[in-house]
Amino acid sequence: MKKIAVFTSGGDAPGMNACIRAVVRTAIHKGHEAIGIFRGYQGMIEGDFQPMYPYSVSNIIQLGGTILRSARSKDFRTPEGRAKAYANLKANDIDGIVAIGGDGTFTGARIFMEEYPDIKMVGCPGTIDNDLFGTDYTIGYDTAINTAMQAIDNIKDTANAHDRLFFVEVMGRDAGFIAMSVGLATGAEAVLVPESKTDIQQLIHTLNTNYTNKKNSSIVVVAEGDDAGGAFKIAEEVQKHCPYETKVTILGHLQRGGRPTCMERVRASRMGVAAVQALLDGKSGVMIGEVKGEIAYTPFSQAIKHHNAINPMMLGMVDILS
Amino acid sequence: MKKIAVFTSGGDAPGMNACIRAVVRTAIHKGHEAIGIFRGYQGMIEGDFQPMYPYSVSNIIQLGGTILRSARSKDFRTPEGRAKAYANLKANDIDGIVAIGGDGTFTGARIFMEEYPDIKMVGCPGTIDNDLFGTDYTIGYDTAINTAMQAIDNIKDTANAHDRLFFVEVMGRDAGFIAMSVGLATGAEAVLVPESKTDIQQLIHTLNTNYTNKKNSSIVVVAEGDDAGGAFKIAEEVQKHCPYETKVTILGHLQRGGRPTCMERVRASRMGVAAVQALLDGKSGVMIGEVKGEIAYTPFSQAIKHHNAINPMMLGMVDILS
Amino acid sequence: MKKIAVFTSGGDAPGMNACIRAVVRTAIHKGHEAIGIFRGYQGMIEGDFQPMYPYSVSNIIQLGGTILRSARSKDFRTPEGRAKAYANLKANDIDGIVAIGGDGTFTGARIFMEEYPDIKMVGCPGTIDNDLFGTDYTIGYDTAINTAMQAIDNIKDTANAHDRLFFVEVMGRDAGFIAMSVGLATGAEAVLVPESKTDIQQLIHTLNTNYTNKKNSSIVVVAEGDDAGGAFKIAEEVQKHCPYETKVTILGHLQRGGRPTCMERVRASRMGVAAVQALLDGKSGVMIGEVKGEIAYTPFSQAIKHHNAINPMMLGMVDILS
Amino acid sequence: MKKIAVFTSGGDAPGMNACIRAVVRTAIHKGHEAIGIFRGYQGMIEGDFQPMYPYSVSNIIQLGGTILRSARSKDFRTPEGRAKAYANLKANDIDGIVAIGGDGTFTGARIFMEEYPDIKMVGCPGTIDNDLFGTDYTIGYDTAINTAMQAIDNIKDTANAHDRLFFVEVMGRDAGFIAMSVGLATGAEAVLVPESKTDIQQLIHTLNTNYTNKKNSSIVVVAEGDDAGGAFKIAEEVQKHCPYETKVTILGHLQRGGRPTCMERVRASRMGVAAVQALLDGKSGVMIGEVKGEIAYTPFSQAIKHHNAINPMMLGMVDILS
Repeated sequence: MKKIAVFTSGGDAPGMNACIRAVVRTAIHKGHEAIGIFRGYQGMIEGDFQPMYPYSVSNIIQLGGTILRSARSKDFRTPEGRAKAYANLKANDIDGIVAIGGDGTFTGARIFMEEYPDIKMVGCPGTIDNDLFGTDYTIGYDTAINTAMQAIDNIKDTANAHDRLFFVEVMGRDAGFIAMSVGLATGAEAVLVPESKTDIQQLIHTLNTNYTNKKNSSIVVVAEGDDAGGAFKIAEEVQKHCPYETKVTILGHLQRGGRPTCMERVRASRMGVAAVQALLDGKSGVMIGEVKGEIAYTPFSQAIKHHNAINPMMLGMVDILS
Repeated sequence: MKKIAVFTSGGDAPGMNACIRAVVRTAIHKGHEAIGIFRGYQGMIEGDFQPMYPYSVSNIIQLGGTILRSARSKDFRTPEGRAKAYANLKANDIDGIVAIGGDGTFTGARIFMEEYPDIKMVGCPGTIDNDLFGTDYTIGYDTAINTAMQAIDNIKDTANAHDRLFFVEVMGRDAGFIAMSVGLATGAEAVLVPESKTDIQQLIHTLNTNYTNKKNSSIVVVAEGDDAGGAFKIAEEVQKHCPYETKVTILGHLQRGGRPTCMERVRASRMGVAAVQALLDGKSGVMIGEVKGEIAYTPFSQAIKHHNAINPMMLGMVDILS
Repeated sequence: MKKIAVFTSGGDAPGMNACIRAVVRTAIHKGHEAIGIFRGYQGMIEGDFQPMYPYSVSNIIQLGGTILRSARSKDFRTPEGRAKAYANLKANDIDGIVAIGGDGTFTGARIFMEEYPDIKMVGCPGTIDNDLFGTDYTIGYDTAINTAMQAIDNIKDTANAHDRLFFVEVMGRDAGFIAMSVGLATGAEAVLVPESKTDIQQLIHTLNTNYTNKKNSSIVVVAEGDDAGGAFKIAEEVQKHCPYETKVTILGHLQRGGRPTCMERVRASRMGVAAVQALLDGKSGVMIGEVKGEIAYTPFSQAIKHHNAINPMMLGMVDILS
Repeated sequence: MKKIAVFTSGGDAPGMNACIRAVVRTAIHKGHEAIGIFRGYQGMIEGDFQPMYPYSVSNIIQLGGTILRSARSKDFRTPEGRAKAYANLKANDIDGIVAIGGDGTFTGARIFMEEYPDIKMVGCPGTIDNDLFGTDYTIGYDTAINTAMQAIDNIKDTANAHDRLFFVEVMGRDAGFIAMSVGLATGAEAVLVPESKTDIQQLIHTLNTNYTNKKNSSIVVVAEGDDAGGAFKIAEEVQKHCPYETKVTILGHLQRGGRPTCMERVRASRMGVAAVQALLDGKSGVMIGEVKGEIAYTPFSQAIKHHNAINPMMLGMVDILS
């Protein structure tokens, strides 16, 4: 292996910088040169490369976002775009790549590797949604749930002060992991996730029972991708049949950034080390994951197709504990 | 003075609990009994009173929200409602009250005191918006700006990673204080406040210039009450003429709660002490404020009518520093 | 099972309240009465019991510390003390107990259960040190590492500004888990833990090499129980042979409290639910743990005797990444 | 004015970066070139200068520490050192300087300006201790009190759980501002500051009364520079006469770093703007301050000699509210 490159792609996630740092320093520690590719696949096509040294990644472990930046690339969906990317990589003696991202990133990687198998690629799961198969935790998830939780803790202060019912929408287009964790952690009355059919009548019944029992506030956490529609739509429906004053908050993009948690930094570092090690061991086309505490390798094709299931016990806990 | 009561009314604000604690402990320290009135004027009408002891307010100084809760009261707008409230106060030997709240709270207090002048009332400015005349800082403001700032710091991570333009709407229906402070503190490109006419064309020009200068991200902070409409409307208009990918986040209710800052707790405590002292000194019908570092007393009628002006130097700083 | 009691014992840990809440609500949800025992074994001896209802544990999931409080009990080490405790439990119809604590707690439980086998006891691992066998994570650990990390992030600002070398001592009398995680997460130059022999000469060599390479600041994280002595002693030794200006900070008790993280609250809740379920399933004398993501049951005797080992890969990562 | 330079000196303080950013951008906005001097007076002597552009200070407003770094300089205390510094400044066409620091910084500036009056110097108060005359708030103070408060909030969780008495030592060698604010904000039983004589017998009496009144925990906040000695010494004395289990925590350097608060960033920015404006207005030898909300100018000689007094009402509040 001559040079090992690293890039981030898709939505940014806290911990990406810790992972970049680990890739760069491990590559160099193992005797290789490290290259940073800026703005994901688009930068690969435009040759937006920069040599990375140990000090290039000093003091970034604690930063949210990604110093390598990210971008969508329409060009990479075309054979011409990928050909340019390949030419740039070859011209720069890059034969190993660590790709940090999610679904879209690994889909692109899979196509690229079929066309240009002499470039080895290993992925690290970088997305706050925790929706990749092959890892118990994605990079960004642990930070995102703490950020969302803090916001809902704040909202709960107001809910408690005013006899109010808040619908809070958190990120998760296809997966309810964020909603489930923050719902449990904030003592939400209900958690609505894409993985289970939402029963609005049941929800209204629960909330009305709470009201009768003099429970003076309630939080309902809604995953972005819930089947019953977004928080606004659900709140509107509930408001018609419920005596609480209803409010809606969409947490939105503030869930994405922020300082990574301790576990995030450790996990992202560990995955970055493992990714370089995997390349050096001749692995390619796999995503690094952490499964039951151990490093695991999952082919891109599987990581993309399947989804992690939410532990049904977790769903049951909401009913017992709220 | 026989008994001194305290209540919170209007939107909750961090620091209200610190103020309640100070009122209760100061009243008792000065030899009086303290009463907590729950749910503001509505609780006054319903006789929702509770004696408070020093330990009743233990371990609340660090909590957001208000342990005395808050509520809107339509009944208090009627002479009958106020008559009931008065009867309850007399029946409980309450002749001094500290009212913690904002505009609506002091409007109610003013009417009540005209009808029942034997009840002495002093106010403490409890609202995150900082929009009361007679105090440089309201209780809740310092915490709210830190909460909003933290959210925008997070959003900036994403803005930087993706060449994006974010419009972030913060609270402030009539006043741009929150927007101005967090805009300066997060290095926003522009801050749109109700106090100054928003020029969308100028804004578009600034943002396009930034884009040309390769500034790869931008934050525009919009006060809820800006004259050009909310963040969604402004973003839509700007998007038509601007190459950035535009996103909108409405921070909403998460700005209201949370642990009060150090300055908040000290300020709220100080105002609570001063409010009781004012009652004991025979003052009534005034709001406690902190003006240029000193305790000030402003008649309710003035506190409500006037508004603090934003320092024009602050508005100028956004242009120089962004 | 008539009544299920819960107590906390040993050093407090964030997440204990989330666990108490889960025990109380699960017990009631399953049709049993719940009792809170205050101040651990001492309260058991003194009959410091209180019935708990769902609302008794409202709004505590987000609080550090323990609402049931904790205490050391010399009396419980005597047969007479334990006899009194037993008599109190019987008099209150308590036949199932969830004990939240660490080594000392489960040692006491084991002795008590041998003497009074008709009282069923299940433990939940509550200690920030993560030093119990039978669980990958103890209640309190995830929060403590984030608190310690935040403190070291702050210190690093100063280290970077001043060419300084900081020795930061974190908790962990017998175990280096906290030190290892925060060391990795803050990019520490070295992490000194009880589990591996500390080589001061090697440390001095590393630090001097850094200095020569113009690395202008360094953090060394020292676990309380490191074999080379505390941070002060090590710093003194290093200072003699090293050109950096050396400073020491002992983080101390601030690592213990604070708002539990999201994962902490979820984990503590899950363990509380599992503990009650275990009692109802007839289990006794076991500690609930989370092993590879699943609930596990470990006899008290084993949980106490053995220790979790630090993943050697983690120790290696410090050298690669710093 | 040809070029305007900026440097930081003395202990780092959060907000210094916001101030540097404001100086650089204001200087450029007003048509001047900006220079960064690294490592304070030592860098001035060594010619460690760097031209600064608007983007040089991008994304630093939220960072603790100082990107210009800081250092002690023995050389600057000698006429030869200062002559070298002067030569470097002249060689680089620097005729205006903004010095961000504390006592030592302005002492050095005063001597230098007497010798080389053609270099204009204006100071910004950068120190967490709030101990400079001529400003109500120094840069760093608001953040430091929030950091210290958060640490003590954590400690209070443990104090409450265990019937313990904690002595917490905070920074402040000559001034008790930090101690006073965090003491009030955390509900401390007592606050010991250099500005008032500490009466250990009275303290013991208060704590014993608390104990008798079943107050089950207590926090005593001690300023580093208190006349009765540090926290360890006082705790030892108290422990002899008091039934509480006593613990000591020295917060130390973690108080210095961290993300600046909102008010800090606004204040530091405002002072940076004002400092450049002052230079352009021909002012020299003055420290910028914020007095009663307005920008004030205080000659270095006065800023150093005098101290702000603690508001005696604040000291009284501790007794009323604890």
